[in-house]
Amino acid sequence: MNRITNLLSIQYPLIQAGMVWCSGWELASEVSKSGGLGVIGSGSMYPEILDEHLTKCKASGAQQFAVNIPLLYPQIDEHIKTIIKHRVPVVISSAGSPKKWTKQLQNEGIKVLHVVSSALFALKSQDAGVDGIIAEGFEAGGHNGRDETTTLCLIPAVKEQIEIPLIAAGGISSGKSMLAAMVLGAEGVQIGSRFVASQESSAHASFKQAVIEAKEGDTELSLKSVTPVRLLKNEFYEEVKKATESGASGDELKALLGKGRAKKGMFEGDLDQGELEIGQIASLLHEVIPAKDIVAEIINEYNNIGGKKLGGYFDF
Amino acid sequence: MNRITNLLSIQYPLIQAGMVWCSGWELASEVSKSGGLGVIGSGSMYPEILDEHLTKCKASGAQQFAVNIPLLYPQIDEHIKTIIKHRVPVVISSAGSPKKWTKQLQNEGIKVLHVVSSALFALKSQDAGVDGIIAEGFEAGGHNGRDETTTLCLIPAVKEQIEIPLIAAGGISSGKSMLAAMVLGAEGVQIGSRFVASQESSAHASFKQAVIEAKEGDTELSLKSVTPVRLLKNEFYEEVKKATESGASGDELKALLGKGRAKKGMFEGDLDQGELEIGQIASLLHEVIPAKDIVAEIINEYNNIGGKKLGGYFDF
Repeated sequence: MNRITNLLSIQYPLIQAGMVWCSGWELASEVSKSGGLGVIGSGSMYPEILDEHLTKCKASGAQQFAVNIPLLYPQIDEHIKTIIKHRVPVVISSAGSPKKWTKQLQNEGIKVLHVVSSALFALKSQDAGVDGIIAEGFEAGGHNGRDETTTLCLIPAVKEQIEIPLIAAGGISSGKSMLAAMVLGAEGVQIGSRFVASQESSAHASFKQAVIEAKEGDTELSLKSVTPVRLLKNEFYEEVKKATESGASGDELKALLGKGRAKKGMFEGDLDQGELEIGQIASLLHEVIPAKDIVAEIINEYNNIGGKKLGGYFDF
Repeated sequence: MNRITNLLSIQYPLIQAGMVWCSGWELASEVSKSGGLGVIGSGSMYPEILDEHLTKCKASGAQQFAVNIPLLYPQIDEHIKTIIKHRVPVVISSAGSPKKWTKQLQNEGIKVLHVVSSALFALKSQDAGVDGIIAEGFEAGGHNGRDETTTLCLIPAVKEQIEIPLIAAGGISSGKSMLAAMVLGAEGVQIGSRFVASQESSAHASFKQAVIEAKEGDTELSLKSVTPVRLLKNEFYEEVKKATESGASGDELKALLGKGRAKKGMFEGDLDQGELEIGQIASLLHEVIPAKDIVAEIINEYNNIGGKKLGGYFDF
């Protein structure tokens, strides 16, 4: 037991990241039933789709699970209603200010975690009353901060600023990296890329294959002048790079990005023209296995290296 | 005792990074006498200056110490002669291929470590016969790799590829980050920025002050089209950024960089027009203290969190 397992009523302080197009109810349910916190990524779902995923997640017997909401989601009021209707135990908010929704969700008995990429926003989020902070480093896949602070530098910096429980994200995929992040001051971890390459992930099979074939240097933080996002390098990434080097404006890059590229890449498997969001750690992933085996492998490795011997919050 | 302390005949597997303009004999000697490996950074020294620093380092009573040589140093033959003349116990090579000099140095009884920023070059360096690898992540100060792999992702990737001892660098400044890096598979650490802010560092007092006042986001990997280097943001950095955004060529950037900017910034204290090399971890540094206190603080924190309880190479 530590502050994270206690707060979220889970067995292991291991959260599966809510990821657009990759984490529907099948993945969330499987992680939750394996002792971690499974998370439905609602950023890529219409309100009625989220409703369907929550109905199925609950019907599957999952007890503790969460929904991730990017706070800039256009129909956020609908999502919030759906979440409250289904009595979702935990909400993970990201990409926006947690000031507006946190209290309302907490009044419904929902725990709120907020994702940040800097100590400054961690402190602001604590002031907004969230229950815990997820601090995500530069190596993480998908949307990321402008300071480019890596997990190794970010976690101690956030820990220095806040009192509430801290969860580390970015570059974590194993029991060793879980323990390393906890040594830095986090009481739990959020893991994304590794679960993209799980059997229950809703990512397209071609994208999963591309993830496990990725080599070092195959991802890069791209689209920095629009909104920084870590992508697997492909034709689309090269077009963005070329446009950026030729001095394209933010609007021109947005036009190049267009609509639906993330779906096209990650969900429909267009590896050339799709937007492929994945973390740097992809180069260490070598196989697609069931989510429950991923959780078990991580916890076994954590225990084998002797994590619990450090006592206190390490002995959850 | 572990493979690093054994290889280098030192008490703690803690190496002070050899840094241009910051690490002369005073710093190297103090770190060595405190139980770590002190390193003289020869990249900013004329051959006769290195000779003088080695004479003083030995006269100070330091037993184990090293010289860092960037392998692209123009008068490298002179440096190698000086190193052999002084019977320097350890050489740390960087920025180039270790094929040419490693055997010659080893034939003189000198241990050779080589600095890399990728698993690919770690493997090539092992094949070249070096005694150990220092793998340095994206968050490190100064010159860096093009893949932008962070220490958290780099160490497990290198560990997967090599058999020889591995030392982690980049983002490490404390006992906790030392232990975290070792959990990932390193058997020791190299620490740079923290020693820039030591009393014995030869950095200009104004630069030391700027380092301890740095906030998150205040460094960035710059000059990527020439040779990537992490800098503290200042007027010179802004000029480089502006030129890069206007599409300046590599040659134009080299002309802007000119000669002597690193000396001007770090050694002479010109905080506006100098090149100020420092790691991301600078935002976590708050004071300038003696190097021996830095070593003691790091080792105490490592022990207090319980590093040795993990056994094996953790119990050095």
